Amino acid sequence: MNQPSLLLTQGDPAGIGPELALRAWMLRKERALPPFAILSDPAFLERVAQSQGWDIPVMAVETAQIPDTFPKALPVLPLSVSVSAQPGRPDAGAAASVVESIETAVRLVQKGAASALVTNPIAKHVLYEAGFRHPGHTEFLAALASDGRDQTYHPVMMLWSEQLAVVPVTVHIPLADVPSALTTDLIVLTGRIVARELRERFGIANPRLALAGLNPHAGENGAMGTEDGSIIAPAIDMLRQEGIEAAGPLPADTMFHARARSRYDAALAMYHDQALIPIKTIAFDEAVNVTLGLPFVRTSPDHGTAFDIAGKGIARPDSLIAAIKLAARLGAA
Amino acid sequence: MNQPSLLLTQGDPAGIGPELALRAWMLRKERALPPFAILSDPAFLERVAQSQGWDIPVMAVETAQIPDTFPKALPVLPLSVSVSAQPGRPDAGAAASVVESIETAVRLVQKGAASALVTNPIAKHVLYEAGFRHPGHTEFLAALASDGRDQTYHPVMMLWSEQLAVVPVTVHIPLADVPSALTTDLIVLTGRIVARELRERFGIANPRLALAGLNPHAGENGAMGTEDGSIIAPAIDMLRQEGIEAAGPLPADTMFHARARSRYDAALAMYHDQALIPIKTIAFDEAVNVTLGLPFVRTSPDHGTAFDIAGKGIARPDSLIAAIKLAARLGAA
Repeated sequence: MNQPSLLLTQGDPAGIGPELALRAWMLRKERALPPFAILSDPAFLERVAQSQGWDIPVMAVETAQIPDTFPKALPVLPLSVSVSAQPGRPDAGAAASVVESIETAVRLVQKGAASALVTNPIAKHVLYEAGFRHPGHTEFLAALASDGRDQTYHPVMMLWSEQLAVVPVTVHIPLADVPSALTTDLIVLTGRIVARELRERFGIANPRLALAGLNPHAGENGAMGTEDGSIIAPAIDMLRQEGIEAAGPLPADTMFHARARSRYDAALAMYHDQALIPIKTIAFDEAVNVTLGLPFVRTSPDHGTAFDIAGKGIARPDSLIAAIKLAARLGAA
Repeated sequence: MNQPSLLLTQGDPAGIGPELALRAWMLRKERALPPFAILSDPAFLERVAQSQGWDIPVMAVETAQIPDTFPKALPVLPLSVSVSAQPGRPDAGAAASVVESIETAVRLVQKGAASALVTNPIAKHVLYEAGFRHPGHTEFLAALASDGRDQTYHPVMMLWSEQLAVVPVTVHIPLADVPSALTTDLIVLTGRIVARELRERFGIANPRLALAGLNPHAGENGAMGTEDGSIIAPAIDMLRQEGIEAAGPLPADTMFHARARSRYDAALAMYHDQALIPIKTIAFDEAVNVTLGLPFVRTSPDHGTAFDIAGKGIARPDSLIAAIKLAARLGAA
């Protein structure tokens, strides 16, 4: 019997997701991509391919047919709705397809009919117009994961590349709110999830975490801020008591160069830019977003809908391809 | 007549400064270094060289003799005090030599007897024990620069490498204090100084500045913080009105990869780690600290006294050498 395949969600049909899925399929041999299918409207994808002048066969399938179809056509799991979208012109009318694609993908991966999910970017403000009530894509996935289970999940965002993996402990909040949002409990919870998934999904027997300080020079013994000593250091102690190898708090500016990176498997940063600046500086096109803490593997390209370049054929598929490859690796674990 | 030479200050004699100055002199041909002298005690430097097993002639000189002496011996401008220090064991007894070295260097460069200064690292806490009253090395230089003049100077720290130059608008303060320390006036003042020195000292006719946002995604139109719109954007408008090319506020995570860096000559970051993470990630050993806004050129290696490795012969001279080369380039402008 076939190994379950990867599923790509459609994402916002007016963004670059659909064209990148088509490009990734075209590069399947060159980049040695594993079989995947996309949950969308086959007719819509055919129109996207035609508008780009790409001769790509698109085939409606069920999950079991993905491996055999993939070499000769892009396999599509059809949605119950048809999709029409103009590149770069987001429309709340497409929200139903965006949501159904995600819901169906989660249902299939939860029941074992898919090995992992790769989600294409969505535009929250477009979904909000259509009544979407979740704070974001990842929170929606976590809510779907909990459906019908007596468990909730704490999703953790990791940005991963071959050179560096980073996890922001706080994410999409104003910088001024970071010091108050940062708690010892949150850091410990995050570190625990990261260490567990590095072991279970990445196959690293003894994961090494490096935790950044919040302040310049990690506070320099309290001379420039107290959180490094009062909030982060106790979290590191607690992680170590659980048997997790954790270094820090480290001065954030000196922990991301090549020699420093060789000393850990993942860095925990205290806020968005502290995590994303180093990885996007050295691996801008290849960084992949991985959601840890869910009961299934989910990766996504490290870019948004990019409405400004959608349909122009200039969006780079590197990050989606890296997301597909990482999902295959993690989904096989 | 000879072009004035570079002067190196001694820095803390128990730190790695003296041994790196000796190593730099040994590498003078290999790295094509311009003539420099160090302000210290010749007998002390001879002892440092001997303790490392280095056969380095040290010669007491006056500034005019530096170029002729440099090929055959390390030129030293003797201080009025003798220096004795054990590597890695800072002692307030050395404070007088540390301070005199800096004061004399500033006096010489101000009167044109030197082309530029390269300062070795000092340890503030050691100087404080001896009664030093300035917040830091750079503020001390600014105070000395103002001595006997009816002008004060606003020193601006730039971290420079061949690949990237960054300027933190706020520097050594707790992260929690950054939002309130950040003002439109401070950003404009900083940007004006950076643009002027890029023109006058770096020889860039039309400098291009890139200004980072404070919040994730530069605030995403106020969804994640308001300072990007209320404080940074007006500063950019004011800089542009003065004829300075300034882009931003840019999402900080996507402005430091190679393609993005090609679009500007210097990046203004809003806080310490936002500036120092990207440059230390890609140019850890080669980054140089340049102080802009002073009436003379001052560079320094981008490391501290490193008492923990002083005297062990393992400290890398790359940053000091880069600081010497940049000082020579800027001092000749």
